[in-house]
Amino acid sequence: MALDELELISEHACFGGVQRFYKHASREIGLPMRFALFLPPQARAGARVPLLTYLAGLTCTEETATMKAGAQRLAAELGLALLMPDTSPRGAGVAGEAESWDFGVGAGFYLDATQAPWAGHWRMESYLLRELIDGVCTTFDLDGQRLGLTGHSMGGHGALTLALRHPGRFASVSAFAPICAPTRCPWGHKAFTGYLGADTAAWAAHDASALMAAQQTAPYPGGILVDQGLADKFLAEQLHPEAFEAACAQVGQPLTLRRHAGYDHGYYFIASVIDDHLRHHAAALVG
Amino acid sequence: MALDELELISEHACFGGVQRFYKHASREIGLPMRFALFLPPQARAGARVPLLTYLAGLTCTEETATMKAGAQRLAAELGLALLMPDTSPRGAGVAGEAESWDFGVGAGFYLDATQAPWAGHWRMESYLLRELIDGVCTTFDLDGQRLGLTGHSMGGHGALTLALRHPGRFASVSAFAPICAPTRCPWGHKAFTGYLGADTAAWAAHDASALMAAQQTAPYPGGILVDQGLADKFLAEQLHPEAFEAACAQVGQPLTLRRHAGYDHGYYFIASVIDDHLRHHAAALVG
Repeated sequence: MALDELELISEHACFGGVQRFYKHASREIGLPMRFALFLPPQARAGARVPLLTYLAGLTCTEETATMKAGAQRLAAELGLALLMPDTSPRGAGVAGEAESWDFGVGAGFYLDATQAPWAGHWRMESYLLRELIDGVCTTFDLDGQRLGLTGHSMGGHGALTLALRHPGRFASVSAFAPICAPTRCPWGHKAFTGYLGADTAAWAAHDASALMAAQQTAPYPGGILVDQGLADKFLAEQLHPEAFEAACAQVGQPLTLRRHAGYDHGYYFIASVIDDHLRHHAAALVG
Repeated sequence: MALDELELISEHACFGGVQRFYKHASREIGLPMRFALFLPPQARAGARVPLLTYLAGLTCTEETATMKAGAQRLAAELGLALLMPDTSPRGAGVAGEAESWDFGVGAGFYLDATQAPWAGHWRMESYLLRELIDGVCTTFDLDGQRLGLTGHSMGGHGALTLALRHPGRFASVSAFAPICAPTRCPWGHKAFTGYLGADTAAWAAHDASALMAAQQTAPYPGGILVDQGLADKFLAEQLHPEAFEAACAQVGQPLTLRRHAGYDHGYYFIASVIDDHLRHHAAALVG
């Protein structure tokens, strides 16, 4: 289904393609939402190209990776469209929504909240899987059968969990410094308590390591790529890549988990490895 | 001479090198100044690498191109250090310094002001040529005999004028959408009137096209590279690349002036062509 009330905010020629910023009226969120879309030169020339969606981390917007990750250069060469959604509803007017940098605005955690007062608008999973990605493919004539998913930190959690919760939907998945086991870290406890409630029984369905451990067979036989910096100040307390690594080993899921000495949690790290992620997705999505 | 009171603000591993942000007490400016420095892996391995300085445009800081231009990837490969200075003094407390986006703070125009109240601190030319570039080379053991200069918009004006005002100092020069004839455009009139005074006789010495036209022989026989987007909203009124083109033709200065259909004035344009600039400088500076 096409996107409602789609409005072009700005567009910029970029590596032979075009980087655009849009606003639309989201049915699932019930509010206006923004997203960034890069169309490679192949799309402008009429080809139905595949789409890689990048989910950003806490406090970020659709602009962050678009400006800082340096993904467009190689995406233009490989013929990948790039979708960069926002990280939460904005303007809902929920009491306390902007009091924390790690909960509420800018911190949607890519799930559908079940608890008041968040359940009304904080529906990022339905927004992405039932509205935005399909809507973008329909509107811009992209190949909705060739979808990849990646993300950073909270967005890495989003990429891994959504790829596991929606089998067959994405052909490729990767992540940068993802929150791999939110049921075991402070960010996850805070978000899941607020969005899903204090009953922890509902939490495992949104924990990448728990979801992977529950698989019968490897869901991504082509392999999953995860990069992690070892100078990342959030690594020890919040990220737990070893939990995801163990879960993948348990079910025979091929995982390339690269640990990079000296690299931190920011976009200089992401930019340094993003070409490998683009090639990882292109191997599954292109040609 | 080394930089005074140098303080590391942050550092980030980046493409095998390191992206750092520093603050120091500038003798020429008389205030603390910030800059960004990228050291490629070759420098970390002990080589004395060349230095490319990038001068940013109006309203920008040392962070803008560092975050948005995507220069580090190829600089790491080519073995170029990258210096990104700030665009003006900050915190001087001059009345009216922050009232305009195109004059005062964020708008130093890479010259030494001669008029009160600006002459005390607005000394960007002396800051760059008598303090920062040498200081960075000394402090970080870079090769001060292999220097390149580039910049965007106001920083493109800075790159072209400083390269012409200081013959022999830079081995290579290029620019992105530079202000090529500030004596003939509103930005230049405003800046030069404020910094240099209403007597226009002093202006030509800071106008790239006038400086080039006054050369006896081609000052950069290896060629100058300039890229310009044709969808740049400032092109017609502010930039005048045709004036610089005519001046180069007049003195036999080889110029590659590329006009790009569809590209605007922003960093998606810069990122799209920056690799060609890095290769242009590397041809003169590396090995």
